[in-house]
This record gives sequence, C-alpha cells and structure tokens, in this order.
Amino acid sequence: MKIEYRPIGVVHSPFHEPRGMPIQPSRAGGVRGTVEVFPEYAEGLDDLAGFSHVILLVHFHRSEGFRLKVTPFLDTVPRGLFATRAPRRPNPIGLSVVRLVEITGGVMTIEGVDMIDGTPVLDIKPCVGEFDHSPDARFGWLEEARARRAVSDGRFDVTGGED
Amino acid sequence: MKIEYRPIGVVHSPFHEPRGMPIQPSRAGGVRGTVEVFPEYAEGLDDLAGFSHVILLVHFHRSEGFRLKVTPFLDTVPRGLFATRAPRRPNPIGLSVVRLVEITGGVMTIEGVDMIDGTPVLDIKPCVGEFDHSPDARFGWLEEARARRAVSDGRFDVTGGED
Repeated sequence: MKIEYRPIGVVHSPFHEPRGMPIQPSRAGGVRGTVEVFPEYAEGLDDLAGFSHVILLVHFHRSEGFRLKVTPFLDTVPRGLFATRAPRRPNPIGLSVVRLVEITGGVMTIEGVDMIDGTPVLDIKPCVGEFDHSPDARFGWLEEARARRAVSDGRFDVTGGED
Repeated sequence: MKIEYRPIGVVHSPFHEPRGMPIQPSRAGGVRGTVEVFPEYAEGLDDLAGFSHVILLVHFHRSEGFRLKVTPFLDTVPRGLFATRAPRRPNPIGLSVVRLVEITGGVMTIEGVDMIDGTPVLDIKPCVGEFDHSPDARFGWLEEARARRAVSDGRFDVTGGED
C-alpha cells in the first residue's frame, strides 16, 4: 500500500544545515521562522490566529534511510527508533509544536523553529492541549537522560531533530 | 513534488464506522485497541514501554477530498480547516496522543482509541511533553465552543475525528 502526499507549504528558517540546529522546538527558544502556505490552501488558516501554539507536520526531505535502533543525542545507548524523535524513520514525518506569532495572508510567523529552511509542510493542526490532561505522564529513557544532561547547556546540540 | 509513504502497522479498534466514534482520544476514555506493528519494524518499539503516552500518526484512509472551511462538531460556524482537526485534509494525516498500556512483541495495547479499525499507521513517536511547557496556551475558537458544549454530555459525538 502506497500513500501519496503533496506539500501544502514550506518552512523558511534561519537554519540551512541540520548541524547546529536546536533538537526540539522547546530548545529553539525564540528562534523565528515562517511557514509559507501555498495560495490554494491559504483560506484554511482562518481562525487559527486564536491559538497560541500549532502543530506542524513536515516531511524530513533531507532524511534518507533508517535504522531500527539509534543512539539519541540525549543518550549514550541505542534505543528503539519509535522511542526517539530521530529524523531518519520509515516515514520521515516530523512533528513540531511551535508558538504562533502572527498570520498575514498565507504566511504564518512562528517561534521555536527546529526545521531546516525549505522543509515541506504536510499539515497544520491547532494545538488543543491533549497533553495538558496527563499530569502523570512518564517519559521513559528520556527522564534519566535529561537528568544527566542537566549539567551542560543542552539547548543547542550538534545536529538537528533527534531527541 | 510527491511524497510517498508506506504503513508501518495498522490499528485494531472496536470502531468499524466513523459514526459514533469519540472525536478525540481525551474523549475516548478507557476505550482500548491495539497497534499491530509489522514484523520488519517491531524492533523499533524497544524502549517505548517506559513512556506513558505515545503519539500515533495515521493515514485517514476513509477520508476523501477536503474543504478549506468546515463547521467542526464542537462549533456552529465554519472555521478554517487548519484551525480544526477535521479528517478531510489535503494530506489526511491523523494525530492521536494515546495512553500506552503494554507492548508484547510487535503489538502495542493502547487506551483512548479514536480511530477506525484498519487505519494504517505511519509513525509512532514518544510523547515528550512539549505542551507541558505552555501553561499560557490559548485554544482559539475551541475555548468558547467548549464552554457552550459543557451543558451537554459531549463525550461521544455523532461522528469521528473532528474537534
């Protein structure tokens, strides 16, 4: 079974290479970029401005191949691919929650960009706060890894996308 | 530009038709289902069991076409498509945050199923709590709509997927 998608827009960001890019939006701080939604889809952005955060689904166009075990940037041992946010995946779809700054015409200004300039956008969804209802959430290997990394400044790691 | 994906697994759920299905995982309560990850990808589930919640990206295989303005189930006026979670989208990718119950072999038992039986799975990601860092999040038209709907039992609405 093949599933075929087409980009609805493109990310414009200050990052032109994965290396040096923040590894998650929460670490990208105030870095701003834009999502240019193609004219034929721009009307679909109506009413989105009332949301403080949006979910971007993008295609990791620079990603090739994948391994089922990867060593995440935040850890030192190999982990199952689906327990990581590594960009090399069977279907290389990236998910970023970004702060919405403003929408003008078909251009959405966002804060917390962790994507390479030119990344194709597949979908935009309002952030409806599903996670807010999970005060008891656990984060597996990431909890330990985060505790270890707390001693260094982990905001900007060597390359992009993995966490 | 065409982007081609292939399913890594399939959802097994008690829902065989969109009608009568919960419209978001948070409203699906304790409804259980499974994600069957195809054998060639099963190793990628390692280490995921430590996370309480996972993000499922699925292909809305029953969705056809889209309109850029839709009236969500939780509202009475048309809204921009990208400000809704309606299943009919240019790229019909569904995003659900579900509670992870257990993983046995390549089968993941989940709680909070809001997908039709047989839905193809594109990706599985650990839920790393991005939204937890946004205590000031705003939810646009949905805040008003939710307040209005608070008088009725909105847990199970007429059809599936829109919010």
